[in-house]
Amino acid sequence: MNTPNLTRPPALDSDAMDAAKRRWATRAKPPGALGRIEDLAIHLAGITSQCPPPVPARPAVIVFAGDHGVVADGASLWPSEITAAMVHTISQRGAAINAFAETIGADVAVVDVGVQGSLGPLPNVRNERIRPGTNSIALGPAMTTSEAEAAICVGARIANEFIDHGADCLIGGELGIGNTTASAALISALTGQAAHTVTGHGAGTPAEGIQHKKQLVATAVAGARSCTNPLELLAHLGGLEIAALAGLYITAAQRQTPYIVDGVIACAALCIADVLAPTTAAHAIAGHRSTEPAASAALDHLTLQPLLDLDLRLGEGTGACLAFPLLKAAALALTHMADLPTSID
Amino acid sequence: MNTPNLTRPPALDSDAMDAAKRRWATRAKPPGALGRIEDLAIHLAGITSQCPPPVPARPAVIVFAGDHGVVADGASLWPSEITAAMVHTISQRGAAINAFAETIGADVAVVDVGVQGSLGPLPNVRNERIRPGTNSIALGPAMTTSEAEAAICVGARIANEFIDHGADCLIGGELGIGNTTASAALISALTGQAAHTVTGHGAGTPAEGIQHKKQLVATAVAGARSCTNPLELLAHLGGLEIAALAGLYITAAQRQTPYIVDGVIACAALCIADVLAPTTAAHAIAGHRSTEPAASAALDHLTLQPLLDLDLRLGEGTGACLAFPLLKAAALALTHMADLPTSID
Repeated sequence: MNTPNLTRPPALDSDAMDAAKRRWATRAKPPGALGRIEDLAIHLAGITSQCPPPVPARPAVIVFAGDHGVVADGASLWPSEITAAMVHTISQRGAAINAFAETIGADVAVVDVGVQGSLGPLPNVRNERIRPGTNSIALGPAMTTSEAEAAICVGARIANEFIDHGADCLIGGELGIGNTTASAALISALTGQAAHTVTGHGAGTPAEGIQHKKQLVATAVAGARSCTNPLELLAHLGGLEIAALAGLYITAAQRQTPYIVDGVIACAALCIADVLAPTTAAHAIAGHRSTEPAASAALDHLTLQPLLDLDLRLGEGTGACLAFPLLKAAALALTHMADLPTSID
Repeated sequence: MNTPNLTRPPALDSDAMDAAKRRWATRAKPPGALGRIEDLAIHLAGITSQCPPPVPARPAVIVFAGDHGVVADGASLWPSEITAAMVHTISQRGAAINAFAETIGADVAVVDVGVQGSLGPLPNVRNERIRPGTNSIALGPAMTTSEAEAAICVGARIANEFIDHGADCLIGGELGIGNTTASAALISALTGQAAHTVTGHGAGTPAEGIQHKKQLVATAVAGARSCTNPLELLAHLGGLEIAALAGLYITAAQRQTPYIVDGVIACAALCIADVLAPTTAAHAIAGHRSTEPAASAALDHLTLQPLLDLDLRLGEGTGACLAFPLLKAAALALTHMADLPTSID
């Protein structure tokens, strides 16, 4: 039950992608004139093995929440209590992700995989808590490998449930004070970029705190050098919500369901997911480029080009949600556009 | 009837914008974390004089079509007949703009302001033809100033009609083989950028044709040096669809209705609109950055930063249409987001 399915997802379907390229070539427009929208529809064909790809109509927005022990070491301007407070806010439909999800006709499900402190039963919040927050990554492993596996399994199970109930595009988000620190550490370890290069201001680390945050990341990355496999690395540097997101992505890729990646925490989850189950990232649609430097490091590492660049740094899945209409437009255009006007022939 | 209303639109409402800034500052997120989405909602407040700004729910997509005499001089790979063929394609809902408009719940209205050749009655196509295409801008004025005024009036009248019928966001598009040539010329004349710098490949000018196209633009711009006012310049270098778009933008700004600007032809229309009726461009929301160099020259000239950058170069209003969901998300978030969690206080 708590051994994650890390089967390698299928490769993108090159036949479907070739068919999509041929179909674009005869649509009523100059060749290539829809730029990255054409690439996006080709990608969707490769993910879903269908040309034209199905037009996504039932996106699911799932926000994983978890706390981080490194906050006690001064990783964030904000106290860990804000994580639980924001779970309440999403539950009451008062967060940015609720507004953005509404514009794409989606509900927001919150999954507590590791919030610190009591939440009680809340509407739209699911209790899958593995432990109440992690240990500080500046002092040692964040969690055990069993806990990391359990968190991956939560993300995988939820992905399967939503897909089984008809979701045709998964948008994963996260909440967790301190998780830009964990993400910078994971991305540094996985890309080889220096800790001080990838560490950013997160939710608002003041100028005087950024050196301390960089030091925490560098210490954590140095401590993780002894890890001998990706699961250990995730357990050492990760967050519970990061592990759950990784499980969501791997499962979406295995099931050939498009998924949209959000900001820096999501990028960290995708980096580790792609090592745990190679080919996962080939299926990823990068929603946007967060202002956090680690996000760009991860996107470059995975050779992903994000759709949006709007200076977002909120998380929750917000940037991924904003990118969803582009998937719909791409698939719909490839499906419904007519052939070139005959008078061109 | 054919004298356009060029009254200067109101300035953006600084009180409403300040209120929007204050409202963002207390929403449940770190300050500034929604980046350009915050700026967009503030802009919408300034345009509409309301905070929070109304959430746009009834976008109107209006495509102006016109032909260009300069095509006979070799401005385009495509013959002018393609303009009429694409009017048919949109009428039959087979163009990219139809697919994109469907994703935002809008119909597409085509307005023939200057197509060459007979169209006959077509569904969703309105006959407002002023003349069947322009004269070649490489040989002299494209049209008379009276014709330019009449085309502005068509755009203005249609903007008024749609707003009167409840449209709360105008998305103007265009069709017209040869119109990247006219747009490059107008943008060169209005920004001072050299013709060879701003001239691009348009709908697919091959490498061997681009020098000729640059020469046509340079000749047209040189011929327009005698113009003594913006209306003459528009008549000299413009297209009928460009003049109509200018009228649409001026009217939208006058009526404090948000409008989204598309690619290079739309940018040319906005440049001239902002000279005809200063302050018009302050109300513009730049939907995307076209790959045409003149588009970037115009956006820089008007100090507009586009929302999307997806390598689009199709026109029809496609890039503007793709940006619409961002307006909705921005206004909805500012309207519905809760205050900061109390535990922050």
